[in-house]
Amino acid sequence: MKIVVLKFGGTSVGSIKRINKVAEIVISYIKKKYKVIVVSSAMSGITNDLIKKSKEISQNFNKEEYDVLVSSGEQMSCSLIAGRLNHLGYNSRSWMGWQIPIITNEVHTSSRIIDIYKSKILNYIKKGGIPVVTGFQGININQRITSLGRGGSDATAIMIAKFFKAKKCVIYTDVDGVYTTDPVIYKKASKIKVISYEEMLEMASLGAKVMQPLSIQDARLNRVNINVKSSFLKKEGTLITKKKNILNNKIIRGISFTKNDAKVTLVGVKDKPGIAASIFKPFHQNLINVDMVVQNISANGKETDLTFTIKLDDLNKTVKLIKRNKSINYRNINVDKNVSKVSIVGVGMVTTPGVTYRMFSALARTNINILVISTSEIKISVLINKKNLKKSITALHKEFKLDK
Amino acid sequence: MKIVVLKFGGTSVGSIKRINKVAEIVISYIKKKYKVIVVSSAMSGITNDLIKKSKEISQNFNKEEYDVLVSSGEQMSCSLIAGRLNHLGYNSRSWMGWQIPIITNEVHTSSRIIDIYKSKILNYIKKGGIPVVTGFQGININQRITSLGRGGSDATAIMIAKFFKAKKCVIYTDVDGVYTTDPVIYKKASKIKVISYEEMLEMASLGAKVMQPLSIQDARLNRVNINVKSSFLKKEGTLITKKKNILNNKIIRGISFTKNDAKVTLVGVKDKPGIAASIFKPFHQNLINVDMVVQNISANGKETDLTFTIKLDDLNKTVKLIKRNKSINYRNINVDKNVSKVSIVGVGMVTTPGVTYRMFSALARTNINILVISTSEIKISVLINKKNLKKSITALHKEFKLDK
Repeated sequence: MKIVVLKFGGTSVGSIKRINKVAEIVISYIKKKYKVIVVSSAMSGITNDLIKKSKEISQNFNKEEYDVLVSSGEQMSCSLIAGRLNHLGYNSRSWMGWQIPIITNEVHTSSRIIDIYKSKILNYIKKGGIPVVTGFQGININQRITSLGRGGSDATAIMIAKFFKAKKCVIYTDVDGVYTTDPVIYKKASKIKVISYEEMLEMASLGAKVMQPLSIQDARLNRVNINVKSSFLKKEGTLITKKKNILNNKIIRGISFTKNDAKVTLVGVKDKPGIAASIFKPFHQNLINVDMVVQNISANGKETDLTFTIKLDDLNKTVKLIKRNKSINYRNINVDKNVSKVSIVGVGMVTTPGVTYRMFSALARTNINILVISTSEIKISVLINKKNLKKSITALHKEFKLDK
Repeated sequence: MKIVVLKFGGTSVGSIKRINKVAEIVISYIKKKYKVIVVSSAMSGITNDLIKKSKEISQNFNKEEYDVLVSSGEQMSCSLIAGRLNHLGYNSRSWMGWQIPIITNEVHTSSRIIDIYKSKILNYIKKGGIPVVTGFQGININQRITSLGRGGSDATAIMIAKFFKAKKCVIYTDVDGVYTTDPVIYKKASKIKVISYEEMLEMASLGAKVMQPLSIQDARLNRVNINVKSSFLKKEGTLITKKKNILNNKIIRGISFTKNDAKVTLVGVKDKPGIAASIFKPFHQNLINVDMVVQNISANGKETDLTFTIKLDDLNKTVKLIKRNKSINYRNINVDKNVSKVSIVGVGMVTTPGVTYRMFSALARTNINILVISTSEIKISVLINKKNLKKSITALHKEFKLDK
């Protein structure tokens, strides 16, 4: 059986017109002799409206009931899709998570799928039916409805693709794939045809518009190849797969960036073993994520300057925590809100010497000053002044021949 | 265990403010040591919006999927109510029809409850929980969600009251009870404290604003006493119960009326056995309901005049069917769109002589011409010109001492 999982996001089912379009897409696969399992999110806006209602009832709304509430959104969209397919003469029905069942752990509002019973859906497919499965939800051992949290419908699609050994898992959304960089900032950005899970995860700023990092992790761990496509445009999308499946690995796959970081420098910190840990401990306790970190050794060996980046939103809290921290001694604290992190990402770089040099010299040629550097196996990031963002993306996109 | 079933209609849960009010009402019963089972409809407007969506998808929307679609409405309202009760420190949870389960027959969009499994809810109540049960829905033998059709949430409440042997079944709605006649038409209409199922059924025009006839039948057949109350006002409502429970039976309980009837007279019909059946057969086949029927015997015994009333909406169709009917012969067809049916209803009339006389003479005194008369054990109806509606209600309300 040639099974394909087609997942449609909120905007792809955002109106009756869009739902009719979804039915057309589904039928195009049926005509190619695929057995289709549809997974759908709630119509865009519905989930947010339900969440708003719950907040009006209680700022601390009961989590079990929250899941009952929000899961009604996919129940609607899936019955409408199945209704449309029936209208067009196809045998189709909606399947709620509890009907299959899709078993999750006991956690509410951010549950994880642990098992999917296959027999009912398989029987239904074999008889020629098109199942339309509610994304984002399941049922736990207590027979309570659970929801999977942000990006949960992607997780449903990925796990169904895994359990049913689907030939394809296509995520239909409102963007038509992953680009080498943001086309809004740099017009010559080109669409990436194939990208590895690892690259996709490192392309945070670009990738997040397409899929939640958690879903990419799910796909990677379960070895499910993901096709990301637009349900609005008839265009080739991007295939997200494992490294080995990619034959011609480019050195650099794309250029990712951030716009909402802040840089903090502690000048003249009394250097002693464990000082960095003392500084960062309260951040960790307050769920503040430290990204890039650089420590300079001072001339006399007794003092050090420590620089790190955090989300701009966390800046005030971070400065407060530092000032309140009695276990550290420093002369001065400097803060810079006008920074951006630019990263080049590519699994090819680990086997290609000189990538770092090419990146730095491309930036130097355009007179861009590098504030902080950090590297991983498949990514090199530099912190720059925000005003140089566009210039640096242009320089790097050209340097690594990513222009379309 | 002192169980009470509290059912809230769409307007009673029509906003977050209303849902908060519902929680208050529930708690007032808990404080009186009742074990409460809540049954709720969808928030007003939600079901209609879902139906509209289904019609946009297909004028002939799949019935199974229709039930999945509309049942999401109660899922929302019930989780919000349970969420509110939790917020206020009470142990509460939503129960969907399929979770209990509430078993219905296989019919979709107008299913009937055939069984309710009690154990889960009973256990939950015993532990001090407040179950909030979705009205209007169940699950059938095929494990598909079903909906009960118009007034379905009332049916759910009544059947739960029956199965759990509830001490009370209170239907909270946006009217505060049943009135002797429509207060909009006649200001001195008074609220009825106790009414029998049979009277309630005959009071169609007044009763329908409060409960669907089908639900009243359900209550009658299952011997469930119904309290109808407003969730908006703190007022005594109306108790609907069996005749024997009513100690002081008034002769006349109330005055009901219609505004959208039409009268059709076939003049000079060739009289032969079975002629009435020949005339009415096509109506029956086309789901046209004939209400009052009068047949006059002609002077020569060979011709007859047949008069009947139907819904105004059915008039054109009815006239067409008559003209197309080759099996009947008549001289003329007369149509009157300006008629109203006024009925006096009361279980007491069967034991009280002279009610008919009092009705007719009250109308005669106010110069109201009676066009057609029909009677049953607990109801006398007269057809009058619509322009005399208010005058006749006033006359009858006074005659039978119903003024408040």
